Amino acid sequence: MKSKSVRSRKQSGYQRLNGVLKGILEEIRPTAEEIAALNEYSNELMGRLRKVVPRNVEIILAGSVARGTQIRGTSDIDIFMLFPKGIAEREMERKAIELAKKVVHRSHGESFVINYAEHPYLKLISEKFGVKADIVPAFKIRDSSEMATAVDRTQLHNQFVMASLSETQKDHVRLLKYILREHNIYGAEARVRGFSGYLCELLVHTFGDITKTLEFFASVKRPCLVEPLSRGVSTAESAKEASQHFKSNFVVIDPTDPDRNVAASVSEESLFRASMVSYRIIKEQSLKAISRYGFSDDDSYRRLESIEKATGLKIYTLKIRLPKISDDTLWPQIVKLSGQMVHFLESYSFKPVITLQEMDGGDGVIAFFMDRQSSSIELVRGPPGFMHEDAVVFYKKHVNKDMDNVSFDGERIFALEEARYKTPEEAIRAALNSKSFRFPSYLKKKSTVLYSKEIPEGCAKLVYRAYIRKMTI
Amino acid sequence: MKSKSVRSRKQSGYQRLNGVLKGILEEIRPTAEEIAALNEYSNELMGRLRKVVPRNVEIILAGSVARGTQIRGTSDIDIFMLFPKGIAEREMERKAIELAKKVVHRSHGESFVINYAEHPYLKLISEKFGVKADIVPAFKIRDSSEMATAVDRTQLHNQFVMASLSETQKDHVRLLKYILREHNIYGAEARVRGFSGYLCELLVHTFGDITKTLEFFASVKRPCLVEPLSRGVSTAESAKEASQHFKSNFVVIDPTDPDRNVAASVSEESLFRASMVSYRIIKEQSLKAISRYGFSDDDSYRRLESIEKATGLKIYTLKIRLPKISDDTLWPQIVKLSGQMVHFLESYSFKPVITLQEMDGGDGVIAFFMDRQSSSIELVRGPPGFMHEDAVVFYKKHVNKDMDNVSFDGERIFALEEARYKTPEEAIRAALNSKSFRFPSYLKKKSTVLYSKEIPEGCAKLVYRAYIRKMTI
Repeated sequence: MKSKSVRSRKQSGYQRLNGVLKGILEEIRPTAEEIAALNEYSNELMGRLRKVVPRNVEIILAGSVARGTQIRGTSDIDIFMLFPKGIAEREMERKAIELAKKVVHRSHGESFVINYAEHPYLKLISEKFGVKADIVPAFKIRDSSEMATAVDRTQLHNQFVMASLSETQKDHVRLLKYILREHNIYGAEARVRGFSGYLCELLVHTFGDITKTLEFFASVKRPCLVEPLSRGVSTAESAKEASQHFKSNFVVIDPTDPDRNVAASVSEESLFRASMVSYRIIKEQSLKAISRYGFSDDDSYRRLESIEKATGLKIYTLKIRLPKISDDTLWPQIVKLSGQMVHFLESYSFKPVITLQEMDGGDGVIAFFMDRQSSSIELVRGPPGFMHEDAVVFYKKHVNKDMDNVSFDGERIFALEEARYKTPEEAIRAALNSKSFRFPSYLKKKSTVLYSKEIPEGCAKLVYRAYIRKMTI
Repeated sequence: MKSKSVRSRKQSGYQRLNGVLKGILEEIRPTAEEIAALNEYSNELMGRLRKVVPRNVEIILAGSVARGTQIRGTSDIDIFMLFPKGIAEREMERKAIELAKKVVHRSHGESFVINYAEHPYLKLISEKFGVKADIVPAFKIRDSSEMATAVDRTQLHNQFVMASLSETQKDHVRLLKYILREHNIYGAEARVRGFSGYLCELLVHTFGDITKTLEFFASVKRPCLVEPLSRGVSTAESAKEASQHFKSNFVVIDPTDPDRNVAASVSEESLFRASMVSYRIIKEQSLKAISRYGFSDDDSYRRLESIEKATGLKIYTLKIRLPKISDDTLWPQIVKLSGQMVHFLESYSFKPVITLQEMDGGDGVIAFFMDRQSSSIELVRGPPGFMHEDAVVFYKKHVNKDMDNVSFDGERIFALEEARYKTPEEAIRAALNSKSFRFPSYLKKKSTVLYSKEIPEGCAKLVYRAYIRKMTI
């Protein structure tokens, strides 16, 4: 009796939240016209495809449009061409692109690019419908044991979601995606490291509805194991084991493949953010708790200036012209370069307070927000005090009797010398000019520019966007 | 045949060095008059003591004067009063001081202070002879098994050295002490952490002469075990064992007590310095390699100014009025306070490039040489991102929507805030004013003054002396 009354009190306790969520849903559920148009266009594309592919290739609609979990105005169409197993992978890829190209009607204002994920795929862009359609090849499989590449899994995910989620739950998936997107943690791609659409679908399925999913996040503890098939959640021994097995503190088992963690791409920070925002939504039950306050990146340059003014920090921005390779390949390289540069700066006593990365429109930016603008002196460390000859060589090389500048620091001989780089700018330029400072592959030193004062507006936009993404909760 | 010719070539190779050392010896060996005067005065003091002590208390001369290893003009007299075992320690101490006081002839221009080591002892100061005589009580023992306190050991050391060292070797001890003193690593006291007189005696005894002792240092490797009784040196397995047993990488076994490491007080840095100077002496065989260039601390203030100018560093000096307690008690406390302050400064992003300590004339100083003079911003770390309620409380407390200043650093929530302390001076003053920043016992906050611009000359002297000690090899 008691637990029942607590439960009903709690349920009624979400009345306000439910109202707010209902309001949001009105905004984000695709309109009947949008769905009709999407259906019409995807059916037409699939029709075109079916005409050109051999009979043993199956054409299916996948992704959120197929599953009915898409958000208004943002949906791309995912069409899969399922080839029979047995054909060689490379041959299948070659054939698939050749076939896909045939369905692009340039005369209808359609264009395409070839992108590279596990397989190359064709992204068709329709000016008229304002949508993009990914035409992706995969092998047809019945279960994960037959899987050749990760792309093949999508058809299984499709089947699971369509069989498992009610229409109401699909709306709740939309709400969850919306909330996560507001906080920049929707999407599994390398630069977001957040929650994929499929993960959102599995969570709503597991917990039943959006509020129970938010409650889960609001109180999540690590390690955590979620099992959608049995709708089970554990933070006990089994979670520890799963955490060790999957090398992750947050494991959501793929119902179509028990050896896959659907949450593998969720970063610690993304989980923190999801937890924090869920906690606030539950407590405050307000639109304010759900939405991040909007920001415009129109006057990014001025905004960055005012951040510099308010904080006393100075922003050093590297702009790198990017080759045309997929974001998922480039992003880790930008992050790596950023780390290399931080390491270099730190070794000359310039430690950035914040480091940001962003990329868009063919440009990557890395921004260092520096508290410290100058350094006069450097501690040059020599060999261990006992390397006898080496220590003497170091001593003779560095000693400056006018300054009395050589000593031992308990482990090594060291010398106090004029700082090699007096400002962060000098240090960054030195790295750009040094042969021993090597950029990660795909990123070109020659195409890299350092801005320390006047940042071009386009560059400022990327930096400000990254700042807002990082520095707000 | 071959090894003999190598040996003789090597010996003749030291001709130049031997000449230099001979020259130094002329300067540092006490003159016949000095020895006569010391003998006369110490005999007189011993005579006075013998008249007042009971018949079962033995009076002996100890220290370098007794052993004939003292350096010209620097010798203090060490007189031990050896009490029979059986009397209670406190009673012995009380009686000893009472008796020692009786022999101070104020009318002869003698005065005294009571110092505290393991026992209290009387330091007699003779204006006329320009010497000090320590009158130290101990128990009479025959070997280390009978020892009650470390002071008792001195009589055994006396016996060993007098029985083992030749007159030439005593001169070589003088040379070794001189060299180490030039480089500020002579003396086992806490603020030097160098080589005691007894350790010098043991090393010359073990290696035979000064050049072989320098050769040993020049090629010393750790761990190292020196056994004076067998004149053995090892860097192999036995050295590893000894190093573990004595928790030290440099072990010199006391021939009067196999379970004592005479080198326990030698710091890593002191050993580095000894090694480096020895290497240079052997290689260069010059006075220049032996002596540190002289420095005067007369114009210390100006010298510090020019260091500030040459390096761009700014010096912040704490002066602490010290209570009248032995240096060996106070020094570790000054070092401890210094460490506490560095830790505090570092937590507000002011990391000193060099930190120095010195004490003299009742004042202690701690100096911080700072590269960084200002900080505008601070990263305030909050609870782990998952402490739910706590993280939200932190967020609400720190969020500043004008600045967008809260985020996660992968582990915790953090906020970017105006720096609490904008300069090293503000930070140090905050520590001095904060109740939670507690000084080590004996050091009084109230008696502590911070100088950042005009350092008083007396204070500058101590800082400059410490700088020269630390920053030259």
